Amino acid sequence: MAPVRNGRHLFNEIPTGYPVPGKTTVYDGSQTIDPETVALKPGSFLLKTLVLSIDPYMRGKMRDVSIKSYSPPYVVGEPLENFGVGVVLRSENPAVKPGDHLYGYYTFEEYLIRNDPAPFRVLKNEQKLPWSVYVGAAGMPGQTAYYAWKELSDAKPGETAFVTAGAGPVGLMVIQLAKLQGMKVIASAGSDDKVNTIKDAGADVAFNYKTTSTREVLQKEGPINVYWDNVGGETLEAALDAAATGARFIECGMISSYNSQPYPVKNLMLIVGKAIKMCGFLVFQFQEKYIEEFYKVVPAKLASGEIKYTEDITRGLEKVGEAILAVQTGKNKAKSVIVVAEE
Amino acid sequence: MAPVRNGRHLFNEIPTGYPVPGKTTVYDGSQTIDPETVALKPGSFLLKTLVLSIDPYMRGKMRDVSIKSYSPPYVVGEPLENFGVGVVLRSENPAVKPGDHLYGYYTFEEYLIRNDPAPFRVLKNEQKLPWSVYVGAAGMPGQTAYYAWKELSDAKPGETAFVTAGAGPVGLMVIQLAKLQGMKVIASAGSDDKVNTIKDAGADVAFNYKTTSTREVLQKEGPINVYWDNVGGETLEAALDAAATGARFIECGMISSYNSQPYPVKNLMLIVGKAIKMCGFLVFQFQEKYIEEFYKVVPAKLASGEIKYTEDITRGLEKVGEAILAVQTGKNKAKSVIVVAEE
Repeated sequence: MAPVRNGRHLFNEIPTGYPVPGKTTVYDGSQTIDPETVALKPGSFLLKTLVLSIDPYMRGKMRDVSIKSYSPPYVVGEPLENFGVGVVLRSENPAVKPGDHLYGYYTFEEYLIRNDPAPFRVLKNEQKLPWSVYVGAAGMPGQTAYYAWKELSDAKPGETAFVTAGAGPVGLMVIQLAKLQGMKVIASAGSDDKVNTIKDAGADVAFNYKTTSTREVLQKEGPINVYWDNVGGETLEAALDAAATGARFIECGMISSYNSQPYPVKNLMLIVGKAIKMCGFLVFQFQEKYIEEFYKVVPAKLASGEIKYTEDITRGLEKVGEAILAVQTGKNKAKSVIVVAEE
Repeated sequence: MAPVRNGRHLFNEIPTGYPVPGKTTVYDGSQTIDPETVALKPGSFLLKTLVLSIDPYMRGKMRDVSIKSYSPPYVVGEPLENFGVGVVLRSENPAVKPGDHLYGYYTFEEYLIRNDPAPFRVLKNEQKLPWSVYVGAAGMPGQTAYYAWKELSDAKPGETAFVTAGAGPVGLMVIQLAKLQGMKVIASAGSDDKVNTIKDAGADVAFNYKTTSTREVLQKEGPINVYWDNVGGETLEAALDAAATGARFIECGMISSYNSQPYPVKNLMLIVGKAIKMCGFLVFQFQEKYIEEFYKVVPAKLASGEIKYTEDITRGLEKVGEAILAVQTGKNKAKSVIVVAEE
């Protein structure tokens, strides 16, 4: 086999507002690789990337390397990185064999050589789900929802939950977990299509926050006992005002502040007055406790339809910039996945 | 015995900023009572007020009755209310007898008739502590510190705690509980005298936040694993910036916003990024779990000196307005107590 292109999608420049496709990140098709003959040292293996995940938190990695945060910054000139699934083409490592599908952290390249299988998980996929699902509802976003809901919600039947970014992979899973526990669920999203997705997932109250006042909905349908926060800012302020005494706020993300100055929240005193428990978390904190349960339970429920999922597939590594921007602006329709290659 | 004055301190007017003595609250000396002959219905008892507590949270009760909050609002024209200790003079209730000292919620009057002993606790005071201590370190403020520290701090030896309003009865107790668990303690207060109090209680780093930058101290002495927040606002913002991953923020109060517009906190995203657990609480939540332990442990440790306490005593019910203002502005020297009468 002759050398083939090994396309890459690189981080090119730290953005000041929204990331700009072709400027913040750029596609580079100049490299080649010969998958059949490329040298593999003992212990290493060659992966062909199949799918890559595009997630909101990636914006936080587009920062100056001097700024510390929970996830390391992207390096200008180097490929982006995020969760993906690939297939092993060749292996000099006894732990993985050709044909194995590995879930883990991928650089945004068509082919990768790695020498440590430990950070990857070999996916059995007994249900024959599309590989893309393993970076969404059956991957990090699904784990985020599943772990933190179990650990932090203290959900009780008859209580009310409010979920923002309800049509995203995290929110959509949370809505369904809350319904499975007998809660009333209020959920919001930024388009009428997304609101339909939320309704299909079983939310009792679903609304488009761009055309309906979050504050008014919560006033009418609250008070809320659990707030799953994906957005922060003004919505967090409204949720504090609508919170019941003893409410749990699960702080998953604050996308409203990722691309602009943060909205300053003025009613934090309610945390004291209403005895609110507001918990940030990182999905990795709960990994060890729940990961085996997650892979045992969730893919099966996704395959049977007991838990629904939706996807917004983009084909081609060169389209990464557009997909990232769409996720930041909310123009994606559902969980954003880049299909890099078919098997 | 002839009738005597039954002085009262009344709530007179909802303040817009700091409460104004003689305007927000007024002393009324026009009523009289004859403690020896006043009629007591079956089941009721007559109390003589000895000490009353002045606490920061009282400002929150000076609001329009239409605004809901964790503690009911004061009613214009009616006496103020707060924790106090009094002595039973006469009783037609088998549960209390003359000479008993009752801790509980008192209206601000020299004499009270009550018909339900349930909300009161009969103080044994085997250690012969001054009664004033039972509204401070051995009362609600001490309980606040003790319960919430046990329940929410997850303190580990070698970790670092930051305590604001460290010379107040809550902060001073928290400093000592943290030291007893082997933590490094940073604590702040608003005067050099208070800083000395904090040092005497064992804080490793004590500073006057009016003359030293909280942000700089935390940068040098942090990161912090536990933040005991009594003030909110800009200090909370600095604490978020200085927090370690997995930090616990115990939200006890936000006095910085009680008398003015709240300072809007801009870096809440760090709750997500640092997986911070920020818990508001109401002391009553934990009462049942800890109250007997508290009265068994704390008064003895206060009497032996193992836990230190300080007090700022004001004599006379007519001085309540000044004492309230001093607590709101921080001009009190320590736990503020009104001594209404000696026995």
